Amino acid sequence: MHYPSYIQNLINHFSRLPTVGPKTAERYVFYLLKQSSQELEKFSQSLKNLKTNITVCQKCLAFSEKNPCHICSDPKREQKLLCIISNLQDMINIENTGKYQGLYHILGGYIDPIEGINPEDLSIKSLNAKLKEKKIKEIILALNPTLEGETTSKYLLKLIKPHNIKVTRLARGLPTGSDLEYADALTISNALENRNELK
Amino acid sequence: MHYPSYIQNLINHFSRLPTVGPKTAERYVFYLLKQSSQELEKFSQSLKNLKTNITVCQKCLAFSEKNPCHICSDPKREQKLLCIISNLQDMINIENTGKYQGLYHILGGYIDPIEGINPEDLSIKSLNAKLKEKKIKEIILALNPTLEGETTSKYLLKLIKPHNIKVTRLARGLPTGSDLEYADALTISNALENRNELK
Repeated sequence: MHYPSYIQNLINHFSRLPTVGPKTAERYVFYLLKQSSQELEKFSQSLKNLKTNITVCQKCLAFSEKNPCHICSDPKREQKLLCIISNLQDMINIENTGKYQGLYHILGGYIDPIEGINPEDLSIKSLNAKLKEKKIKEIILALNPTLEGETTSKYLLKLIKPHNIKVTRLARGLPTGSDLEYADALTISNALENRNELK
Repeated sequence: MHYPSYIQNLINHFSRLPTVGPKTAERYVFYLLKQSSQELEKFSQSLKNLKTNITVCQKCLAFSEKNPCHICSDPKREQKLLCIISNLQDMINIENTGKYQGLYHILGGYIDPIEGINPEDLSIKSLNAKLKEKKIKEIILALNPTLEGETTSKYLLKLIKPHNIKVTRLARGLPTGSDLEYADALTISNALENRNELK
């Protein structure tokens, strides 16, 4: 015996989402069965509208409602400063600090030879075009402090160097609210090396 | 800064699913952004159709494509045997064994005073109606071997007893493929008590 086809169908769709197995998908669908038809209709519309109303900003490569996006088309942003991030989520996180006024470039991932992700799978071509424009004075690499992030940083540094542009990366140290007792050796080494003078 | 509204909207919808937080919902939406518009359209249709094409069988209370469902309307099913389960998922699991030929009654949950779930929140009223019809000879309680399952079983036993109907429950013992070394004391006690003679 199987579920009624309309239930099974939706379970199959949810099962395709990352990290979702059939049991989790079932749970989602049985939750939805308890919701109102209007709520389901809204959810359904939202899914339908996702791609039709979203475009990609051809400058920073972020998903956006317009092209160029509101950051790339804002003349008040610092045009000489470029922050390279892996994805839109990281861009939103940086924007939410309110501390960054430059532009962005979304790579679309990390170089990861084990997963078969090579530089040509990332937005290196459009980054190269930006480098050749010679408007950028500093590039901030805001990549994960992981093996893939480091590999990607090294690759980018090599790519950017000939253009005579200053390259920086986000500071390494203790995250706010963390416990020194549980910090790993590399984090503590970085925190020691980059220690700040108190005045 | 926020996500473009069409992205944020869908993140909000996914966030309402059980066990899904905003970060997981983001992950789902960014996965979907990489899928084709046709795929999204199908997913959207599937959501929209979920409730409009599903009804509840007024006999066993299962979600079904017709009322009564194909089990309740099947004259070949054993009409004297009723299996009480908590939800449709459990019913499907029992059906898939191919070992049960009776009818079902879906309770819709377990009695759980801590969560504020009382007998009146379950389908006791329609169970009572079935009991009064005096057609049932045996009721199998197929409930979870948990505190809530036991509480519910005790309540049901008290409810059914005056009707002079045989009440059984699923056997307790070692699950197939398990390791005796890691079995808990209660499971082993149950397995000992209900031991079967080999011939």
